[in-house]
Amino acid sequence: MKVIKTVAEMQSWSKKIKNQGKTICLVPTMGYLHRGHLSLIEMGKKLLYDKVVVSIFVNPAQFGENEDLDSYPSDLEKDFKLAEKLTTDAIFLPLKEEIYNKNFQTYVELASLPDHLCGLSRPVHFKGVATIVTKLFNIVCPDAAIFGQKDYQQLQVIRQMTKDMNFNIKILGAPIVREEDGLAMSSRNTYLTPEQRESALCLSESIEKAKTIIGQGETDAGIILKKINAHIKSFAEAKIDYTALCDPDTLDNVKEIKKKTLLALAVQIGKTRLIDNAVIDPEQ
Amino acid sequence: MKVIKTVAEMQSWSKKIKNQGKTICLVPTMGYLHRGHLSLIEMGKKLLYDKVVVSIFVNPAQFGENEDLDSYPSDLEKDFKLAEKLTTDAIFLPLKEEIYNKNFQTYVELASLPDHLCGLSRPVHFKGVATIVTKLFNIVCPDAAIFGQKDYQQLQVIRQMTKDMNFNIKILGAPIVREEDGLAMSSRNTYLTPEQRESALCLSESIEKAKTIIGQGETDAGIILKKINAHIKSFAEAKIDYTALCDPDTLDNVKEIKKKTLLALAVQIGKTRLIDNAVIDPEQ
Repeated sequence: MKVIKTVAEMQSWSKKIKNQGKTICLVPTMGYLHRGHLSLIEMGKKLLYDKVVVSIFVNPAQFGENEDLDSYPSDLEKDFKLAEKLTTDAIFLPLKEEIYNKNFQTYVELASLPDHLCGLSRPVHFKGVATIVTKLFNIVCPDAAIFGQKDYQQLQVIRQMTKDMNFNIKILGAPIVREEDGLAMSSRNTYLTPEQRESALCLSESIEKAKTIIGQGETDAGIILKKINAHIKSFAEAKIDYTALCDPDTLDNVKEIKKKTLLALAVQIGKTRLIDNAVIDPEQ
Repeated sequence: MKVIKTVAEMQSWSKKIKNQGKTICLVPTMGYLHRGHLSLIEMGKKLLYDKVVVSIFVNPAQFGENEDLDSYPSDLEKDFKLAEKLTTDAIFLPLKEEIYNKNFQTYVELASLPDHLCGLSRPVHFKGVATIVTKLFNIVCPDAAIFGQKDYQQLQVIRQMTKDMNFNIKILGAPIVREEDGLAMSSRNTYLTPEQRESALCLSESIEKAKTIIGQGETDAGIILKKINAHIKSFAEAKIDYTALCDPDTLDNVKEIKKKTLLALAVQIGKTRLIDNAVIDPEQ
Protein backbone atom coordinates (compact mmCIF):
# COMPACT_ATOMS: atom_id res chain seq x y z
CA MET A 1 0.00 0.00 0.00
CA LYS A 2 1.47 3.26 -1.15
CA VAL A 3 1.24 6.31 1.13
CA ILE A 4 1.22 9.53 -0.86
CA LYS A 5 1.52 12.91 0.81
CA THR A 6 1.79 15.47 -1.96
CA VAL A 7 -0.59 16.60 -4.69
CA ALA A 8 2.12 16.29 -7.34
CA GLU A 9 2.94 12.70 -6.40
CA MET A 10 -0.73 11.72 -6.23
CA GLN A 11 -1.44 13.23 -9.67
CA SER A 12 1.57 11.53 -11.21
CA TRP A 13 0.67 8.16 -9.60
CA SER A 14 -2.87 8.44 -10.99
CA LYS A 15 -1.60 9.47 -14.43
CA LYS A 16 0.62 6.40 -14.53
CA ILE A 17 -2.30 4.13 -13.59
CA LYS A 18 -4.55 5.74 -16.22
CA ASN A 19 -1.86 5.44 -18.88
CA GLN A 20 -1.91 1.70 -18.21
CA GLY A 21 -5.63 1.77 -19.09
CA LYS A 22 -6.56 0.98 -15.49
CA THR A 23 -9.38 2.43 -13.39
CA ILE A 24 -9.24 4.23 -10.05
CA CYS A 25 -11.86 4.38 -7.33
CA LEU A 26 -11.59 7.06 -4.62
CA VAL A 27 -12.89 6.69 -1.06
CA PRO A 28 -12.63 10.13 0.59
CA THR A 29 -12.46 10.02 4.41
CA MET A 30 -11.42 12.12 7.37
CA GLY A 31 -9.67 9.09 8.87
CA TYR A 32 -10.41 7.28 12.16
CA LEU A 33 -11.77 4.52 9.97
CA HIS A 34 -14.68 2.39 11.20
CA ARG A 35 -16.66 -0.42 9.59
CA GLY A 36 -18.66 2.14 7.62
CA HIS A 37 -15.53 3.36 5.87
CA LEU A 38 -14.32 -0.19 5.38
CA SER A 39 -17.55 -1.06 3.59
CA LEU A 40 -16.78 1.73 1.10
CA ILE A 41 -13.32 0.31 0.41
CA GLU A 42 -14.84 -3.18 0.06
CA MET A 43 -17.39 -1.79 -2.38
CA GLY A 44 -14.62 -0.32 -4.55
CA LYS A 45 -12.84 -3.68 -4.54
CA LYS A 46 -16.03 -5.62 -5.22
CA LEU A 47 -16.89 -3.40 -8.19
CA LEU A 48 -13.51 -4.37 -9.67
CA TYR A 49 -11.90 -0.98 -9.95
CA ASP A 50 -8.22 -1.70 -10.59
CA LYS A 51 -7.01 0.61 -7.83
CA VAL A 52 -8.75 1.83 -4.69
CA VAL A 53 -7.38 5.06 -3.21
CA VAL A 54 -8.40 6.14 0.30
CA SER A 55 -7.87 9.80 1.10
CA ILE A 56 -7.49 10.83 4.72
CA PHE A 57 -7.85 14.55 5.31
CA VAL A 58 -9.68 16.40 8.08
CA ASN A 59 -10.92 19.27 5.96
CA PRO A 60 -10.99 22.52 7.95
CA ALA A 61 -13.18 24.23 5.33
CA GLN A 62 -16.17 22.05 6.19
CA PHE A 63 -16.10 22.78 9.93
CA GLY A 64 -17.91 25.80 11.38
CA GLU A 65 -16.30 28.00 14.00
CA ASN A 66 -17.84 26.27 17.01
CA GLU A 67 -17.49 22.74 15.66
CA ASP A 68 -15.13 19.91 16.53
CA LEU A 69 -12.26 20.49 14.07
CA ASP A 70 -9.62 20.57 16.81
CA SER A 71 -10.92 17.52 18.67
CA TYR A 72 -11.74 15.36 15.63
CA PRO A 73 -10.43 11.87 16.46
CA SER A 74 -7.41 10.43 14.70
CA ASP A 75 -5.52 7.11 14.75
CA LEU A 76 -3.45 6.91 11.58
CA GLU A 77 -1.60 3.78 12.58
CA LYS A 78 -4.87 1.90 12.97
CA ASP A 79 -6.25 3.45 9.77
CA PHE A 80 -3.22 2.23 7.80
CA LYS A 81 -3.57 -1.31 9.19
CA LEU A 82 -7.29 -1.47 8.42
CA ALA A 83 -6.84 -0.07 4.91
CA GLU A 84 -3.94 -2.38 4.16
CA LYS A 85 -5.90 -5.43 5.34
CA LEU A 86 -8.53 -4.63 2.68
CA THR A 87 -5.73 -4.37 0.07
CA THR A 88 -6.21 -0.65 -0.42
CA ASP A 89 -3.78 0.37 -3.16
CA ALA A 90 -2.90 3.86 -1.99
CA ILE A 91 -3.56 6.25 0.87
CA PHE A 92 -3.56 9.94 0.04
CA LEU A 93 -2.58 11.72 3.26
CA PRO A 94 -1.80 15.38 2.58
CA LEU A 95 -0.84 18.05 5.10
CA LYS A 96 -3.25 20.94 5.52
CA GLU A 97 -0.76 23.32 3.86
CA GLU A 98 -0.57 21.03 0.83
CA ILE A 99 -4.32 21.41 0.29
CA TYR A 100 -4.88 25.02 1.35
CA ASN A 101 -1.88 27.21 0.66
CA LYS A 102 -1.79 30.67 2.17
CA ASN A 103 -3.25 32.48 -0.82
CA PHE A 104 -6.09 29.95 -1.30
CA GLN A 105 -9.35 31.69 -2.22
CA THR A 106 -11.48 29.54 -4.55
CA TYR A 107 -14.61 27.78 -3.31
CA VAL A 108 -17.29 25.61 -4.91
CA GLU A 109 -20.77 26.38 -3.71
CA LEU A 110 -24.28 25.10 -4.42
CA ALA A 111 -27.23 27.47 -4.56
CA SER A 112 -30.12 25.46 -3.10
CA LEU A 113 -29.32 21.92 -1.87
CA PRO A 114 -27.45 23.24 1.21
CA ASP A 115 -30.54 25.23 2.30
CA HIS A 116 -31.97 22.11 3.91
CA LEU A 117 -31.30 19.74 6.83
CA CYS A 118 -27.67 19.95 8.07
CA GLY A 119 -26.95 23.00 5.90
CA LEU A 120 -29.26 25.11 8.05
CA SER A 121 -27.26 24.64 11.25
CA ARG A 122 -23.91 24.20 9.47
CA PRO A 123 -23.89 27.12 6.97
CA VAL A 124 -20.32 26.69 5.65
CA HIS A 125 -20.28 22.88 5.74
CA PHE A 126 -21.34 21.97 2.21
CA LYS A 127 -19.28 24.75 0.62
CA GLY A 128 -16.29 23.12 2.35
CA VAL A 129 -17.38 19.66 1.21
CA ALA A 130 -17.94 20.67 -2.44
CA THR A 131 -14.60 22.46 -2.48
CA ILE A 132 -12.50 19.64 -1.03
CA VAL A 133 -14.22 17.01 -3.19
CA THR A 134 -13.56 19.09 -6.32
CA LYS A 135 -9.92 19.29 -5.30
CA LEU A 136 -9.69 15.56 -4.52
CA PHE A 137 -11.28 14.74 -7.88
CA ASN A 138 -8.60 16.80 -9.64
CA ILE A 139 -5.82 15.36 -7.50
CA VAL A 140 -6.77 11.67 -7.62
CA CYS A 141 -8.51 11.71 -11.05
CA PRO A 142 -10.76 8.75 -10.16
CA ASP A 143 -13.25 6.97 -12.43
CA ALA A 144 -15.56 6.55 -9.45
CA ALA A 145 -15.88 7.85 -5.90
CA ILE A 146 -17.76 6.18 -3.05
CA PHE A 147 -19.52 8.02 -0.22
CA GLY A 148 -21.60 6.72 2.67
CA GLN A 149 -25.36 7.21 2.63
CA LYS A 150 -25.21 8.18 6.30
CA ASP A 151 -24.21 11.63 5.09
CA TYR A 152 -27.23 11.65 2.79
CA GLN A 153 -27.26 15.38 2.07
CA GLN A 154 -23.51 15.33 1.42
CA LEU A 155 -24.02 12.54 -1.12
CA GLN A 156 -26.73 14.57 -2.87
CA VAL A 157 -24.53 17.69 -2.87
CA ILE A 158 -21.66 15.72 -4.40
CA ARG A 159 -23.90 14.09 -7.02
CA GLN A 160 -25.23 17.52 -8.03
CA MET A 161 -21.78 19.15 -8.00
CA THR A 162 -20.30 16.33 -10.07
CA LYS A 163 -23.06 16.69 -12.65
CA ASP A 164 -23.00 20.51 -12.69
CA MET A 165 -19.20 20.68 -12.98
CA ASN A 166 -19.16 17.92 -15.66
CA PHE A 167 -16.77 15.67 -13.77
CA ASN A 168 -16.71 12.40 -15.71
CA ILE A 169 -16.78 10.46 -12.43
CA LYS A 170 -19.32 7.91 -11.20
CA ILE A 171 -20.65 8.75 -7.73
CA LEU A 172 -21.63 5.71 -5.69
CA GLY A 173 -23.53 5.69 -2.40
CA ALA A 174 -22.97 2.88 0.11
CA PRO A 175 -25.57 1.74 2.68
CA ILE A 176 -25.29 2.86 6.31
CA VAL A 177 -23.35 0.42 8.50
CA ARG A 178 -24.70 0.09 12.06
CA GLU A 179 -23.58 -1.21 15.43
CA GLU A 180 -25.46 -4.31 16.59
CA ASP A 181 -27.93 -2.20 18.55
CA GLY A 182 -28.68 0.02 15.57
CA LEU A 183 -26.44 3.07 16.11
CA ALA A 184 -25.09 4.28 12.78
CA MET A 185 -21.28 4.05 12.58
CA SER A 186 -19.58 7.43 12.97
CA SER A 187 -16.12 8.56 13.97
CA ARG A 188 -17.92 10.94 16.32
CA ASN A 189 -19.46 8.05 18.32
CA THR A 190 -16.14 7.97 20.16
CA TYR A 191 -17.08 11.26 21.87
CA LEU A 192 -20.00 9.60 23.71
CA THR A 193 -19.94 8.66 27.40
CA PRO A 194 -21.56 5.28 28.21
CA GLU A 195 -24.77 7.07 29.24
CA GLN A 196 -24.78 9.18 26.06
CA ARG A 197 -24.14 6.01 24.05
CA GLU A 198 -27.53 4.77 25.37
CA SER A 199 -29.21 8.03 24.42
CA ALA A 200 -27.68 7.89 20.95
CA LEU A 201 -30.07 5.04 20.15
CA CYS A 202 -32.86 7.61 19.88
CA LEU A 203 -31.84 8.18 16.24
CA SER A 204 -32.04 4.61 14.92
CA GLU A 205 -35.04 3.85 17.13
CA SER A 206 -36.87 6.85 15.65
CA ILE A 207 -36.23 5.53 12.17
CA GLU A 208 -37.67 2.12 13.13
CA LYS A 209 -40.60 3.87 14.78
CA ALA A 210 -41.30 5.91 11.65
CA LYS A 211 -41.13 2.79 9.47
CA THR A 212 -43.69 1.11 11.73
CA ILE A 213 -46.03 4.12 11.78
CA ILE A 214 -45.81 4.55 8.00
CA GLY A 215 -46.27 0.78 7.58
CA GLN A 216 -49.51 1.11 9.56
CA GLY A 217 -50.78 3.55 6.97
CA GLU A 218 -50.02 6.96 8.48
CA THR A 219 -49.27 9.46 5.71
CA ASP A 220 -49.31 12.80 7.57
CA ALA A 221 -45.69 13.94 7.92
CA GLY A 222 -46.59 16.29 10.78
CA ILE A 223 -48.06 13.46 12.86
CA ILE A 224 -45.12 11.14 12.18
CA LEU A 225 -42.55 13.81 13.09
CA LYS A 226 -44.47 14.71 16.27
CA LYS A 227 -44.27 11.09 17.45
CA ILE A 228 -40.58 10.85 16.58
CA ASN A 229 -39.77 14.13 18.30
CA ALA A 230 -41.54 12.98 21.46
CA HIS A 231 -39.56 9.76 21.38
CA ILE A 232 -36.22 11.56 21.00
CA LYS A 233 -37.06 13.96 23.81
CA SER A 234 -37.58 11.00 26.16
CA PHE A 235 -33.82 10.30 26.02
CA ALA A 236 -31.38 11.95 28.44
CA GLU A 237 -29.21 14.74 26.98
CA ALA A 238 -30.90 14.47 23.56
CA LYS A 239 -31.57 17.79 21.85
CA ILE A 240 -33.12 17.80 18.40
CA ASP A 241 -31.36 19.82 15.70
CA TYR A 242 -33.88 18.70 13.07
CA THR A 243 -36.16 15.84 12.15
CA ALA A 244 -37.47 16.00 8.60
CA LEU A 245 -39.44 14.02 6.06
CA CYS A 246 -38.44 15.16 2.63
CA ASP A 247 -38.12 14.46 -1.07
CA PRO A 248 -35.05 12.20 -1.50
CA ASP A 249 -33.83 14.23 -4.51
CA THR A 250 -34.61 17.88 -3.78
CA LEU A 251 -34.61 17.54 0.05
CA ASP A 252 -37.74 19.73 0.13
CA ASN A 253 -40.04 18.92 3.05
CA VAL A 254 -43.08 16.82 2.24
CA LYS A 255 -46.44 17.03 4.01
CA GLU A 256 -47.78 13.69 2.92
CA ILE A 257 -45.96 10.38 2.54
CA LYS A 258 -47.09 9.17 -0.88
CA LYS A 259 -43.88 7.82 -2.33
CA LYS A 260 -40.32 7.03 -1.20
CA THR A 261 -39.47 9.66 1.39
CA LEU A 262 -36.27 10.54 3.20
CA LEU A 263 -36.44 10.64 6.98
CA ALA A 264 -33.42 12.60 8.17
CA LEU A 265 -32.43 13.31 11.76
CA ALA A 266 -29.78 15.35 13.53
CA VAL A 267 -29.67 15.16 17.31
CA GLN A 268 -27.23 16.69 19.73
CA ILE A 269 -26.33 14.15 22.44
CA GLY A 270 -24.51 16.23 25.02
CA LYS A 271 -21.89 18.03 22.93
CA THR A 272 -21.91 15.41 20.15
CA ARG A 273 -24.01 16.01 17.07
CA LEU A 274 -25.18 12.77 15.45
CA ILE A 275 -27.08 12.22 12.22
CA ASP A 276 -28.98 9.30 10.75
CA ASN A 277 -31.45 8.75 7.93
CA ALA A 278 -33.44 6.25 5.90
CA VAL A 279 -35.41 6.37 2.69
CA ILE A 280 -38.81 4.92 3.59
CA ASP A 281 -41.11 3.44 0.99
CA PRO A 282 -44.79 3.54 2.09
CA GLU A 283 -45.58 0.80 -0.45
CA GLN A 284 -43.46 -1.74 1.38
CA MET B 1 -12.00 19.88 -38.20
CA LYS B 2 -14.44 18.12 -35.94
CA VAL B 3 -17.45 20.05 -34.62
CA ILE B 4 -18.63 18.66 -31.30
CA LYS B 5 -21.88 19.78 -29.72
CA THR B 6 -22.38 17.60 -26.67
CA VAL B 7 -20.49 17.18 -23.40
CA ALA B 8 -20.51 13.39 -23.73
CA GLU B 9 -19.02 13.46 -27.24
CA MET B 10 -16.39 16.02 -26.24
CA GLN B 11 -15.33 13.97 -23.22
CA SER B 12 -15.13 10.78 -25.23
CA TRP B 13 -13.15 12.50 -28.03
CA SER B 14 -10.68 13.84 -25.47
CA LYS B 15 -10.41 10.48 -23.72
CA LYS B 16 -9.56 8.84 -27.04
CA ILE B 17 -6.86 11.44 -27.73
CA LYS B 18 -5.37 11.04 -24.25
CA ASN B 19 -5.41 7.26 -24.55
CA GLN B 20 -3.20 7.70 -27.61
CA GLY B 21 -0.74 9.54 -25.35
CA LYS B 22 -1.43 12.82 -27.14
CA THR B 23 -1.82 16.31 -25.67
CA ILE B 24 -4.73 18.74 -25.94
CA CYS B 25 -4.69 22.52 -25.80
CA LEU B 26 -7.94 24.40 -25.19
CA VAL B 27 -8.71 27.89 -26.46
CA PRO B 28 -11.95 29.03 -24.79
CA THR B 29 -13.83 31.74 -26.71
CA MET B 30 -17.26 33.29 -27.01
CA GLY B 31 -16.95 33.16 -30.80
CA TYR B 32 -16.92 36.06 -33.30
CA LEU B 33 -13.25 35.29 -33.67
CA HIS B 34 -10.80 38.10 -34.40
CA ARG B 35 -7.03 38.16 -34.79
CA GLY B 36 -6.65 38.11 -31.01
CA HIS B 37 -8.37 34.72 -30.83
CA LEU B 38 -6.44 33.48 -33.84
CA SER B 39 -3.16 34.30 -32.09
CA LEU B 40 -4.25 31.99 -29.24
CA ILE B 41 -4.91 29.12 -31.66
CA GLU B 42 -1.56 29.81 -33.35
CA MET B 43 0.15 29.74 -29.96
CA GLY B 44 -1.35 26.31 -29.22
CA LYS B 45 -0.10 25.03 -32.57
CA LYS B 46 3.32 26.63 -32.17
CA LEU B 47 3.76 25.05 -28.72
CA LEU B 48 3.25 21.67 -30.41
CA TYR B 49 0.19 20.45 -28.54
CA ASP B 50 -1.08 17.51 -30.57
CA LYS B 51 -4.65 18.81 -30.72
CA VAL B 52 -6.02 22.32 -30.41
CA VAL B 53 -9.67 22.58 -29.36
CA VAL B 54 -11.52 25.89 -29.68
CA SER B 55 -14.66 26.20 -27.57
CA ILE B 56 -17.31 28.67 -28.67
CA PHE B 57 -19.89 29.43 -26.00
CA VAL B 58 -21.45 32.75 -25.03
CA ASN B 59 -21.64 32.07 -21.30
CA PRO B 60 -24.75 33.67 -19.77
CA ALA B 61 -23.38 33.23 -16.22
CA GLN B 62 -20.66 35.82 -16.79
CA PHE B 63 -23.00 38.57 -18.00
CA GLY B 64 -24.72 40.93 -15.57
CA GLU B 65 -28.37 41.85 -15.92
CA ASN B 66 -27.80 45.07 -17.83
CA GLU B 67 -25.01 43.76 -19.99
CA ASP B 68 -24.86 42.75 -23.64
CA LEU B 69 -25.66 39.01 -23.48
CA ASP B 70 -28.53 39.30 -25.96
CA SER B 71 -26.66 41.46 -28.45
CA TYR B 72 -23.28 39.71 -28.25
CA PRO B 73 -22.08 39.38 -31.87
CA SER B 74 -21.96 36.01 -33.61
CA ASP B 75 -20.82 34.69 -37.00
CA LEU B 76 -20.31 30.96 -36.69
CA GLU B 77 -19.73 30.39 -40.39
CA LYS B 78 -16.83 32.84 -40.38
CA ASP B 79 -15.53 31.41 -37.06
CA PHE B 80 -15.44 27.91 -38.54
CA LYS B 81 -13.57 29.10 -41.63
CA LEU B 82 -11.00 30.99 -39.59
CA ALA B 83 -10.48 28.11 -37.15
CA GLU B 84 -10.18 25.58 -39.96
CA LYS B 85 -7.64 27.71 -41.80
CA LEU B 86 -5.41 27.50 -38.70
CA THR B 87 -5.88 23.69 -38.68
CA THR B 88 -7.87 23.72 -35.43
CA ASP B 89 -8.58 20.07 -34.61
CA ALA B 90 -11.98 20.44 -33.00
CA ILE B 91 -14.59 23.07 -32.23
CA PHE B 92 -16.67 22.53 -29.10
CA LEU B 93 -19.96 24.31 -29.72
CA PRO B 94 -22.52 23.36 -27.07
CA LEU B 95 -26.06 24.66 -26.72
CA LYS B 96 -26.86 26.67 -23.60
CA GLU B 97 -29.03 23.81 -22.27
CA GLU B 98 -26.15 21.38 -22.66
CA ILE B 99 -24.03 23.49 -20.32
CA TYR B 100 -26.65 24.75 -17.86
CA ASN B 101 -29.47 22.27 -17.35
CA LYS B 102 -32.56 23.39 -15.53
CA ASN B 103 -31.49 22.21 -12.09
CA PHE B 104 -27.97 23.69 -12.39
CA GLN B 105 -26.85 25.23 -9.08
CA THR B 106 -23.08 24.86 -8.57
CA TYR B 107 -20.73 27.83 -8.91
CA VAL B 108 -17.02 28.40 -8.49
CA GLU B 109 -16.16 31.64 -6.78
CA LEU B 110 -12.98 33.44 -5.70
CA ALA B 111 -12.84 35.37 -2.46
CA SER B 112 -10.58 38.35 -3.20
CA LEU B 113 -9.27 38.64 -6.79
CA PRO B 114 -12.70 39.69 -8.13
CA ASP B 115 -12.83 42.62 -5.66
CA HIS B 116 -10.73 44.71 -8.02
CA LEU B 117 -10.93 46.39 -11.44
CA CYS B 118 -13.71 44.88 -13.62
CA GLY B 119 -15.10 42.85 -10.71
CA LEU B 120 -16.26 46.04 -9.01
CA SER B 121 -18.63 47.06 -11.80
CA ARG B 122 -19.34 43.47 -12.92
CA PRO B 123 -20.10 41.66 -9.63
CA VAL B 124 -21.18 38.30 -11.08
CA HIS B 125 -18.69 38.26 -13.96
CA PHE B 126 -15.77 36.32 -12.49
CA LYS B 127 -18.01 33.83 -10.72
CA GLY B 128 -19.45 33.08 -14.16
CA VAL B 129 -15.97 32.88 -15.68
CA ALA B 130 -14.53 30.58 -12.99
CA THR B 131 -17.61 28.34 -13.25
CA ILE B 132 -17.59 27.95 -17.05
CA VAL B 133 -13.82 27.44 -17.18
CA THR B 134 -14.05 24.72 -14.50
CA LYS B 135 -16.74 23.04 -16.60
CA LEU B 136 -14.75 23.38 -19.82
CA PHE B 137 -11.68 21.94 -18.12
CA ASN B 138 -13.70 18.87 -17.09
CA ILE B 139 -15.34 18.57 -20.49
CA VAL B 140 -12.29 19.03 -22.72
CA CYS B 141 -9.66 17.67 -20.27
CA PRO B 142 -6.86 19.76 -21.77
CA ASP B 143 -3.17 19.70 -20.85
CA ALA B 144 -3.03 23.45 -21.40
CA ALA B 145 -5.44 26.33 -21.93
CA ILE B 146 -4.67 29.67 -23.55
CA PHE B 147 -6.28 32.98 -22.64
CA GLY B 148 -5.64 36.50 -23.93
CA GLN B 149 -3.85 39.00 -21.71
CA LYS B 150 -6.35 41.65 -22.77
CA ASP B 151 -8.64 40.16 -20.12
CA TYR B 152 -5.85 40.48 -17.58
CA GLN B 153 -7.97 40.04 -14.46
CA GLN B 154 -9.73 37.04 -16.02
CA LEU B 155 -6.34 35.44 -16.67
CA GLN B 156 -5.31 36.01 -13.04
CA VAL B 157 -8.64 34.59 -11.80
CA ILE B 158 -8.19 31.49 -13.95
CA ARG B 159 -4.57 31.01 -12.88
CA GLN B 160 -5.63 31.23 -9.21
CA MET B 161 -8.67 28.97 -9.67
CA THR B 162 -6.61 26.38 -11.55
CA LYS B 163 -4.04 26.33 -8.75
CA ASP B 164 -6.61 26.33 -5.93
CA MET B 165 -8.72 23.57 -7.50
CA ASN B 166 -5.59 21.49 -8.35
CA PHE B 167 -6.34 21.25 -12.05
CA ASN B 168 -3.25 19.71 -13.63
CA ILE B 169 -3.51 22.15 -16.55
CA LYS B 170 -0.99 24.70 -17.76
CA ILE B 171 -2.48 28.19 -18.09
CA LEU B 172 -0.89 30.30 -20.83
CA GLY B 173 -1.42 34.01 -21.43
CA ALA B 174 -1.08 35.43 -24.92
CA PRO B 175 -0.11 39.06 -25.69
CA ILE B 176 -2.76 41.59 -26.66
CA VAL B 177 -3.28 41.88 -30.42
CA ARG B 178 -4.04 45.39 -31.66
CA GLU B 179 -5.43 47.12 -34.71
CA GLU B 180 -2.89 49.18 -36.64
CA ASP B 181 -3.86 52.33 -34.78
CA GLY B 182 -3.47 50.67 -31.38
CA LEU B 183 -7.03 49.65 -30.45
CA ALA B 184 -6.98 46.28 -28.69
CA MET B 185 -8.87 43.59 -30.60
CA SER B 186 -12.27 42.80 -29.11
CA SER B 187 -15.47 41.27 -30.43
CA ARG B 188 -17.19 44.28 -28.86
CA ASN B 189 -15.36 46.72 -31.18
CA THR B 190 -18.07 45.85 -33.70
CA TYR B 191 -20.57 47.82 -31.59
CA LEU B 192 -18.72 51.11 -32.23
CA THR B 193 -19.94 53.78 -34.66
CA PRO B 194 -17.16 55.38 -36.78
CA GLU B 195 -17.06 58.34 -34.34
CA GLN B 196 -16.91 56.04 -31.32
CA ARG B 197 -14.15 54.05 -33.04
CA GLU B 198 -12.09 57.27 -32.96
CA SER B 199 -12.85 57.78 -29.26
CA ALA B 200 -11.91 54.17 -28.50
CA LEU B 201 -8.29 55.11 -29.12
CA CYS B 202 -8.30 56.83 -25.72
CA LEU B 203 -7.45 53.47 -24.09
CA SER B 204 -4.34 52.52 -26.04
CA GLU B 205 -3.24 56.17 -26.18
CA SER B 206 -3.47 56.35 -22.39
CA ILE B 207 -1.25 53.32 -22.07
CA GLU B 208 1.34 54.90 -24.35
CA LYS B 209 1.04 58.15 -22.41
CA ALA B 210 1.59 56.33 -19.10
CA LYS B 211 4.64 54.54 -20.49
CA THR B 212 6.10 57.87 -21.54
CA ILE B 213 5.37 59.56 -18.21
CA ILE B 214 6.81 56.62 -16.25
CA GLY B 215 9.79 56.51 -18.63
CA GLN B 216 10.42 60.17 -17.75
CA GLY B 217 10.76 59.14 -14.10
CA GLU B 218 7.32 59.84 -12.64
CA THR B 219 6.57 57.33 -9.87
CA ASP B 220 3.45 58.83 -8.23
CA ALA B 221 0.49 56.69 -9.28
CA GLY B 222 -1.97 59.47 -8.45
CA ILE B 223 -0.26 61.95 -10.77
CA ILE B 224 -0.02 59.41 -13.59
CA LEU B 225 -3.70 58.44 -13.29
CA LYS B 226 -4.78 62.10 -13.15
CA LYS B 227 -3.03 62.75 -16.47
CA ILE B 228 -4.52 59.63 -18.04
CA ASN B 229 -8.00 60.45 -16.80
CA ALA B 230 -7.78 63.95 -18.24
CA HIS B 231 -6.69 62.49 -21.56
CA ILE B 232 -9.59 60.01 -21.67
CA LYS B 233 -12.11 62.72 -20.79
CA SER B 234 -10.96 64.74 -23.81
CA PHE B 235 -12.55 62.11 -26.10
CA ALA B 236 -16.21 62.31 -27.16
CA GLU B 237 -18.59 59.82 -25.47
CA ALA B 238 -15.77 58.42 -23.28
CA LYS B 239 -16.81 57.68 -19.67
CA ILE B 240 -14.24 56.16 -17.33
CA ASP B 241 -15.26 53.01 -15.45
CA TYR B 242 -11.82 52.73 -13.86
CA THR B 243 -8.19 53.51 -14.45
CA ALA B 244 -5.83 51.75 -12.05
CA LEU B 245 -2.16 51.14 -11.39
CA CYS B 246 -1.82 47.94 -9.43
CA ASP B 247 0.28 44.98 -8.43
CA PRO B 248 0.27 42.53 -11.40
CA ASP B 249 -0.31 39.53 -9.09
CA THR B 250 -2.67 40.68 -6.33
CA LEU B 251 -4.29 43.52 -8.35
CA ASP B 252 -4.06 45.72 -5.25
CA ASN B 253 -3.64 49.41 -6.09
CA VAL B 254 -0.12 50.79 -5.80
CA LYS B 255 0.75 54.37 -4.83
CA GLU B 256 4.27 54.38 -6.16
CA ILE B 257 5.66 52.79 -9.32
CA LYS B 258 8.76 51.00 -8.08
CA LYS B 259 8.59 47.74 -9.99
CA LYS B 260 6.56 46.18 -12.82
CA THR B 261 3.04 47.60 -12.48
CA LEU B 262 -0.23 46.81 -14.21
CA LEU B 263 -2.03 49.74 -15.79
CA ALA B 264 -5.62 48.64 -16.35
CA LEU B 265 -8.40 50.65 -17.95
CA ALA B 266 -12.11 50.24 -18.54
CA VAL B 267 -13.89 52.95 -20.48
CA GLN B 268 -17.45 53.16 -21.66
CA ILE B 269 -17.59 54.51 -25.22
CA GLY B 270 -21.26 55.26 -25.73
CA LYS B 271 -22.90 52.00 -24.73
CA THR B 272 -19.80 49.88 -25.36
CA ARG B 273 -17.51 49.02 -22.48
CA LEU B 274 -13.90 48.53 -23.58
CA ILE B 275 -10.89 47.39 -21.56
CA ASP B 276 -7.16 47.50 -22.13
CA ASN B 277 -4.03 47.05 -20.05
CA ALA B 278 -0.27 46.82 -20.01
CA VAL B 279 2.33 45.76 -17.49
CA ILE B 280 4.77 48.67 -17.34
CA ASP B 281 8.32 48.24 -16.12
CA PRO B 282 9.78 51.52 -14.76
CA GLU B 283 13.29 50.10 -15.25
CA GLN B 284 12.91 49.99 -19.01
